[in-house]
Amino acid sequence: MAKAAVVGANGYLGGELLRLLSYHPQIELTAAVSRSQAGKTVGEVAPNTERFSDLVLEAEPDGIDVDVAFLAQGAGEAMKVVPSLLERGIRVVDLGPDYRLPDPAEYARVYGREHTDPGHLAEAAYGLPELFGDSVRRARLVANPGCYPTATLLAVAPLAQAGEIAGRVVVDAKSGTSGSGAQPTSSSHHPEAALTVTPYGTPDHRHAPEMAAALARLGGTAEVPLVFVPHLVPLVRGILCSIYASPVAGVDAGRWPSLFESRYSGSKFVRVGGVPKLPWAQGTNRCYLSVQFAGGSPVVFSAIDNLGKGGAAQAIQNANVMLGLDETSGLLHPGFGV
Amino acid sequence: MAKAAVVGANGYLGGELLRLLSYHPQIELTAAVSRSQAGKTVGEVAPNTERFSDLVLEAEPDGIDVDVAFLAQGAGEAMKVVPSLLERGIRVVDLGPDYRLPDPAEYARVYGREHTDPGHLAEAAYGLPELFGDSVRRARLVANPGCYPTATLLAVAPLAQAGEIAGRVVVDAKSGTSGSGAQPTSSSHHPEAALTVTPYGTPDHRHAPEMAAALARLGGTAEVPLVFVPHLVPLVRGILCSIYASPVAGVDAGRWPSLFESRYSGSKFVRVGGVPKLPWAQGTNRCYLSVQFAGGSPVVFSAIDNLGKGGAAQAIQNANVMLGLDETSGLLHPGFGV
Amino acid sequence: MAKAAVVGANGYLGGELLRLLSYHPQIELTAAVSRSQAGKTVGEVAPNTERFSDLVLEAEPDGIDVDVAFLAQGAGEAMKVVPSLLERGIRVVDLGPDYRLPDPAEYARVYGREHTDPGHLAEAAYGLPELFGDSVRRARLVANPGCYPTATLLAVAPLAQAGEIAGRVVVDAKSGTSGSGAQPTSSSHHPEAALTVTPYGTPDHRHAPEMAAALARLGGTAEVPLVFVPHLVPLVRGILCSIYASPVAGVDAGRWPSLFESRYSGSKFVRVGGVPKLPWAQGTNRCYLSVQFAGGSPVVFSAIDNLGKGGAAQAIQNANVMLGLDETSGLLHPGFGV
Amino acid sequence: MAKAAVVGANGYLGGELLRLLSYHPQIELTAAVSRSQAGKTVGEVAPNTERFSDLVLEAEPDGIDVDVAFLAQGAGEAMKVVPSLLERGIRVVDLGPDYRLPDPAEYARVYGREHTDPGHLAEAAYGLPELFGDSVRRARLVANPGCYPTATLLAVAPLAQAGEIAGRVVVDAKSGTSGSGAQPTSSSHHPEAALTVTPYGTPDHRHAPEMAAALARLGGTAEVPLVFVPHLVPLVRGILCSIYASPVAGVDAGRWPSLFESRYSGSKFVRVGGVPKLPWAQGTNRCYLSVQFAGGSPVVFSAIDNLGKGGAAQAIQNANVMLGLDETSGLLHPGFGV
Repeated sequence: MAKAAVVGANGYLGGELLRLLSYHPQIELTAAVSRSQAGKTVGEVAPNTERFSDLVLEAEPDGIDVDVAFLAQGAGEAMKVVPSLLERGIRVVDLGPDYRLPDPAEYARVYGREHTDPGHLAEAAYGLPELFGDSVRRARLVANPGCYPTATLLAVAPLAQAGEIAGRVVVDAKSGTSGSGAQPTSSSHHPEAALTVTPYGTPDHRHAPEMAAALARLGGTAEVPLVFVPHLVPLVRGILCSIYASPVAGVDAGRWPSLFESRYSGSKFVRVGGVPKLPWAQGTNRCYLSVQFAGGSPVVFSAIDNLGKGGAAQAIQNANVMLGLDETSGLLHPGFGV
Repeated sequence: MAKAAVVGANGYLGGELLRLLSYHPQIELTAAVSRSQAGKTVGEVAPNTERFSDLVLEAEPDGIDVDVAFLAQGAGEAMKVVPSLLERGIRVVDLGPDYRLPDPAEYARVYGREHTDPGHLAEAAYGLPELFGDSVRRARLVANPGCYPTATLLAVAPLAQAGEIAGRVVVDAKSGTSGSGAQPTSSSHHPEAALTVTPYGTPDHRHAPEMAAALARLGGTAEVPLVFVPHLVPLVRGILCSIYASPVAGVDAGRWPSLFESRYSGSKFVRVGGVPKLPWAQGTNRCYLSVQFAGGSPVVFSAIDNLGKGGAAQAIQNANVMLGLDETSGLLHPGFGV
Repeated sequence: MAKAAVVGANGYLGGELLRLLSYHPQIELTAAVSRSQAGKTVGEVAPNTERFSDLVLEAEPDGIDVDVAFLAQGAGEAMKVVPSLLERGIRVVDLGPDYRLPDPAEYARVYGREHTDPGHLAEAAYGLPELFGDSVRRARLVANPGCYPTATLLAVAPLAQAGEIAGRVVVDAKSGTSGSGAQPTSSSHHPEAALTVTPYGTPDHRHAPEMAAALARLGGTAEVPLVFVPHLVPLVRGILCSIYASPVAGVDAGRWPSLFESRYSGSKFVRVGGVPKLPWAQGTNRCYLSVQFAGGSPVVFSAIDNLGKGGAAQAIQNANVMLGLDETSGLLHPGFGV
Repeated sequence: MAKAAVVGANGYLGGELLRLLSYHPQIELTAAVSRSQAGKTVGEVAPNTERFSDLVLEAEPDGIDVDVAFLAQGAGEAMKVVPSLLERGIRVVDLGPDYRLPDPAEYARVYGREHTDPGHLAEAAYGLPELFGDSVRRARLVANPGCYPTATLLAVAPLAQAGEIAGRVVVDAKSGTSGSGAQPTSSSHHPEAALTVTPYGTPDHRHAPEMAAALARLGGTAEVPLVFVPHLVPLVRGILCSIYASPVAGVDAGRWPSLFESRYSGSKFVRVGGVPKLPWAQGTNRCYLSVQFAGGSPVVFSAIDNLGKGGAAQAIQNANVMLGLDETSGLLHPGFGV
């Protein structure tokens, strides 16, 4: 059994990592870190998770001795501890944004703080294994993608790489409220969120530069100008992206379903089919893609669980790949019918 | 007091008409018709509505003697009774689709049935008073627009008329479940609808030709190719349309808010401002427009209550105009904060 | 027109007062107070409410010159300003808890602070006009009941007064999240509230002593031991109380519906009938009562809008009564069918 | 691997059985039956469930050759096939109501149809293993309890057996809408269910006689008169029962938590603690019990997933016990934090 630590165990991504690790056959949680909950047990902060119920939360990751550390914290936290973790030979999957943008100046612009560990930016793999599996396999440090980029890139990247699309791509995303984290805010206050659809993130959502950077990493493709607008909908878990892209002249978008099927034929996690239901993705590492037509134009739907494939489950997929395990280890349990 | 009848009083639009008419200062409900509920009182089928509680529902509109009849039924029903109603001098506001498409062949194609009253198609006004007020004023017969067309056209038509937009327009619509009516269906079954976002209406939603026809009626404008995709979200009332349109070369979309403000300066019902909340529109005849930017591109949000401005409230606005009353009569009560 | 002020205009009860006053035919809002929003206009803090959009919010109620002041603030705030308001001849409806408990020692015990205006406690009327109409009519100061006590007492008081019930009464209440106010908290965070039912208020909810005090005020009746357990359900507005009371020996609870009908025959606001839907009560001053039987025992259901009859609408009813207006003035608009 | 069949694979309980069996380490699904979906594959009717995606649904269970059959159908269906299944040596777990009431006359009264297989009623075990484990272990035929009886009995039975309670017990149950099945109905139509709390089942819910019969089976205890009132709340999965029982004279209900802990010390599935969240139970075989006090009286909360411990997961627990497997096999995956 590989040994793992979850740092930031008290947030929603941290909690989902605890849940998924509780039945992972090859990775064992041996340390959990939470500044605010230090001294409590995992059983107290995550009563749903029983296997580690007696493990005591630590305040800092200084003393952890594991094979892989999952960092599930906000911007600015990971870069404080990554250099020390790597030096101690610990592999890192960072679920926060610190290592997603390759350019430290871009990071400073988007996140409003200087990057304090620019030296490790170049070696960080972008942890979307379906697109960047080789670099994940070789990495000590993986930047786990944001939830919106995961859903968007799994649909857009194959089209962009195949040269199938021209012009701007509109990504209209609908997300549940767990994506904004465990901290109560006005926009996620139940009376404000339960009876409306709230577009946000204009004029510039932080995930837009992340998506642009990821598409640039894929290289060689024409630029893909994204118009990305996230909306909060009255769900807890789940993202549906409705993606409006125009085929280049001469291309019949009718072949996109088979293009996706061929591109993901080796994947256990990406499924191509009819219109998906978000419960199917709940708690899983699955992404459901569907191509439909409206007024003769194609629209691609991409559905994930923002805490699953868009977060904790993908982080475990990355750890599996980094550790040389089967990519699907511990990740094949199905989602819900309802 | 003008006298009014509601035909189809037992559906959601019928119920909302009963509610709104219960406090209309100049129009009085004197007849209600429902085939399935005939013999019951209004108080029994709509316990929230007290003013008419003793009015007995009739099975057919044959004997009604009113100034205006509101028809709130599915496709194919209105055209059975409109000729007779008009002949008897009764003004008609049809909340169904029978008189929305000017071309009977198009109607047959979209609704899968022959139009049995093509003679009145030409005289039917399209009941979006902000855009077609003059024809509503002169009309005996008004086709009340669909909910999606109302939200979309109030945003798109001013831009199209002003020649501000080029190329296709993506309309990504999110709607509550009351829009699909009072009849239980699988897609509106609570366990199926409450935890997901369901795109539907592909490849061809019936409201797309209605929108095209309405834009054509406005005349003189360049064609506006619409890519319209409705989504069911876990709300009961409310539609938010996210509209992605590209400004023509040389146009700065930054002026669109003032264009909307100027276009609707005379309206009590269309409001231009920041990101709207759907409860503000609940039960009202209001439409909230907002222009935001994402990745440098404009996105226009249009928010209404599908049963209000998208249905019963707009029907009453049309009746007000047809009857020569103040357009706002009975329609200025505010929506909710939460 | 009587002149009114809303103090605490930025909370949910304050916002609902603004909404209801916007169409009150005999009371006009002429002042609004909010410490946190002072300097903004009503239109900015409550975009749904247009009639007063240019009224500027003041920081303190010191200079207001009105006939009636509605105080919609948390515990401890009203007692700071009530003495001055009364001295200036202003009638007060306090929607907070400061004047609900007649005994200042009880207040200190329940709310954890000394009462600083015990002198006005005795004269404060308990503002449930259906039960205490005479004292409201004579009052300068009315303590508007809490939402749970309103729903509970309208059902329990007539039974207790008529000597129909024996032993303890179980009140199992289900409330929407707007009842806990506009301030984000962990329990009203959407991801925490949307997918569960959360009992709270144990071992002692603050509304339990309020209910006991109100029943004691009614006098002469046997003591009614209440077991009161509120639950948060995934709704925004609305309270349903399920009330389990045992008839005294010899009493047939089958006569309770007619007992309620007779008790409330003069009321426009309390309705007795079949199982109610909460949307019927939304935004209204209505209370829907229903008596059903389970296993041979009666259960009384009482449904209100916590911000309506359970808050702002009842406050306006109290003001109507205090000002000598028709009790129903501005309060007869119906709720929703859906 | 034991072989299993799911009959009624297209309903919500059937779908949950498919999901749970997809990762059961000792029971394998080898047949699935659905009259309406015969000929389709499991992958088509349950796209979330991949492991059996090519298994073709059969119309009738006539030819199935398995160790255990799960029957997930409505009243009247199981008794048509149970005699033949038992004769062929197939163990049966019936998730419907046909074998829950030991008295065929009672069955006829409650379900409105004659029992056509009274001969097997006596041998059917009532499948609540925590209470009736011995009889389940010996059974060929197990009647899986209803969702409400499961949640109620796990709380009430230990108190009744220990002679701790006196007088009537009020069970106020709140349930998600999946409990009423996959068939669209008016009460589960999203616009009707999403914004209200609907008490139902009065005057006589079918689960009340089932609970009385189960308590009687436990024998020797004083009769426990139940007042059972279920309410539909706007959730999909989950039941919270709030149970109001009075301790007999001399008993301190403060010891109930330790009574429950002691009673369930050998169980992996029943947990005693603070106020539970329904997501913890989602998809699991867990029941969370909590004892709180209100106004000095105890209230016991019992939380389960109606499709999990209240249905499919408990059915698998029963099969595990019948087949001599570890009771927890395939059932220890945790629920969700959110």
